[in-house]
Amino acid sequence: MKPLQHLTILDLSRVLACPFASMILAELGATVIKVEQPGTGDETRGFEPQLAQDSAYYFACNRSKASITVNLRSDEGRRIIRELAQQADALVENFPVGTLARQGLDYATLSALNPKLVYVSCTGFGQTGPYAHKKGYDTVFQAMGGLMSLTGEKGGGPVKPGLPVADLTSGLWVAIAILSALAGRDRTGRGALVDFSMLDGQVSLLTLAAARYFALGEVPPRLGTEHPGRVPSASFRCKDGKYAHITASDQHWAPLCEALQMGTDLIFLNNSARVARRDEVMAAMTRAVEKLTRAELVAKLDAAEVPVGPVNDVAEVLADPQVRARKLIGSFDYPGVGEFKALGLPYKFLGWDDPAIGRPPLLGEHTDAILKARLGYSDERIAALRQTKAI
Amino acid sequence: MKPLQHLTILDLSRVLACPFASMILAELGATVIKVEQPGTGDETRGFEPQLAQDSAYYFACNRSKASITVNLRSDEGRRIIRELAQQADALVENFPVGTLARQGLDYATLSALNPKLVYVSCTGFGQTGPYAHKKGYDTVFQAMGGLMSLTGEKGGGPVKPGLPVADLTSGLWVAIAILSALAGRDRTGRGALVDFSMLDGQVSLLTLAAARYFALGEVPPRLGTEHPGRVPSASFRCKDGKYAHITASDQHWAPLCEALQMGTDLIFLNNSARVARRDEVMAAMTRAVEKLTRAELVAKLDAAEVPVGPVNDVAEVLADPQVRARKLIGSFDYPGVGEFKALGLPYKFLGWDDPAIGRPPLLGEHTDAILKARLGYSDERIAALRQTKAI
Repeated sequence: MKPLQHLTILDLSRVLACPFASMILAELGATVIKVEQPGTGDETRGFEPQLAQDSAYYFACNRSKASITVNLRSDEGRRIIRELAQQADALVENFPVGTLARQGLDYATLSALNPKLVYVSCTGFGQTGPYAHKKGYDTVFQAMGGLMSLTGEKGGGPVKPGLPVADLTSGLWVAIAILSALAGRDRTGRGALVDFSMLDGQVSLLTLAAARYFALGEVPPRLGTEHPGRVPSASFRCKDGKYAHITASDQHWAPLCEALQMGTDLIFLNNSARVARRDEVMAAMTRAVEKLTRAELVAKLDAAEVPVGPVNDVAEVLADPQVRARKLIGSFDYPGVGEFKALGLPYKFLGWDDPAIGRPPLLGEHTDAILKARLGYSDERIAALRQTKAI
Repeated sequence: MKPLQHLTILDLSRVLACPFASMILAELGATVIKVEQPGTGDETRGFEPQLAQDSAYYFACNRSKASITVNLRSDEGRRIIRELAQQADALVENFPVGTLARQGLDYATLSALNPKLVYVSCTGFGQTGPYAHKKGYDTVFQAMGGLMSLTGEKGGGPVKPGLPVADLTSGLWVAIAILSALAGRDRTGRGALVDFSMLDGQVSLLTLAAARYFALGEVPPRLGTEHPGRVPSASFRCKDGKYAHITASDQHWAPLCEALQMGTDLIFLNNSARVARRDEVMAAMTRAVEKLTRAELVAKLDAAEVPVGPVNDVAEVLADPQVRARKLIGSFDYPGVGEFKALGLPYKFLGWDDPAIGRPPLLGEHTDAILKARLGYSDERIAALRQTKAI
């Protein structure tokens, strides 16, 4: 049994942020009904690289869900959504502001039918404000939210973090919103509307950088792999051309100097002094590290209990002994593809079954089953809906 | 009223990831009791830059909590924790593996006293596996989890994303864990233990990159601000030296070419063709963009409905009209500091009060009140505990 087994989430979202949120809830036990456009479905099914009729992208954030095809532009399709919303605990959607209101599927309409419904709208910039109707994607939020300005080589241009950080963190924020509003509903019996904006989500993550700015008025610069207030905290190139990241507080510094045979010139400096003499400390460490392979360096610093880690590429991450020991990698079988690997959720439970990797649904795989079991539709009615392309 | 107003979280965590998680829950309404070491408290209170007796760092992730000082090395202190845990909905901790077990404050002990307790342990590498006792910090997880290998200039070394992404996303994952386990508890009356690892959390975020690797076997390289499968999606330098990020799907491409007066040589290329002729497209765009200031560029592309955003530095983010309109910036009054600004949570509710920015607690500010009101301790008993440095 899983902790969210009692929940049903009606998922009208597409692409990455919200589908990632609902996948998390699905693998924690919730029944997630993914609503897709008949014929095409979630546009990520068509992204490269393709796998049978679907894609790696689609697989990455739609596991363990059910799929129903519903044409939201048809009256009968909208009626299906209203009927499903009457039975759902939560609805999540990421249409442009106003889209679902025009289709009679906004919170006002659905909460009148189901006052317990939690309805989470995730948009680029929110339901209000001067940019409410502006278009945006992950990288635009990373840019506008400040993350990109903080990322890059010293003196160089901005760099984009190599993951869709705005999308992924929005997914996490949305999952928290759904669970929080449901927790409140369980006490009061009342649902809620949550207006979440991806730009707001990204800006909220500036919390530390903003506090520093509010305190000092200094705009933080780009620092490569270094840290504004800690030396050393940086990636260093090893003899074999691979990189390792080392970060040391005062209690690690003397063991680090000894492990790397750096002599005693710098060993008595505390962090403030090391920050003041950053160039000198970094140069000494660069010289010490480049004599060692990455494996040698990590072994020496691990033995000295200095925080260190290889800068792993994706293949190295997936082969890492700890990642393997924690059984983060699993797989599912997909029609026409066979076994396909995936990364699971980062939780181990005592008291519940652990999250398990489930198969993503084929487009519309559960349409008939959902219409029959949840809404009591007959085969004839379903055939007629299919005839008119409502499903 | 706020959605989590019925919850009490006993927070034995320090520094960033878990304090960020509990701050989110606190501003959604939960009562968070932050347990701190008498005398010093959370070590981040001592970080630079200092503000009165505390720090900007501490302010950034401890708002809206209560603080109690308890010496976990004293029998009486541990007794206080056990008594508070009997009344708490959830406990969150980020001590090294085994620390709380040695102090009789592990899940086995506390769940025997309170079977409904949700207990979330957040460690660097998890409770199990070969690295269970290895030290780590945010940047080590960013390195080992693959994010840093994906971030940087083409052909250059790895770059660290400019926010503590591993810490912040761990905070979001931990908040989801707490809320999920509590949702399950509300159905069954049984608590749970959650073993969350920051490395696992970081690795889980590779979901898309890993799916691509599992599909193709290719290790993704660093791409600066570019995107592996979309052209253009990149930051460009404008006439005034500022950068803007532009990302265009096929429907945006012709409007973009027209808005930037790029001529018709490239206007008929679809995304696949643009990816194939990446250098040529990027060069044409670079030439077009460098004729315009950032403000001119953004205005033109906004008018053409092409996704674009300035690469804002922290000061620009905080002055942005949308950030202002969404009222993300608020403030609190802190003794000895006065008004201090902060970024709130990215949610607007209908049905609940919005999250509001609260003041972080002074060290031990609520010790007496909590011991009296929750545990019924007398003034004499509290004085004696203070005498023996148990609190």
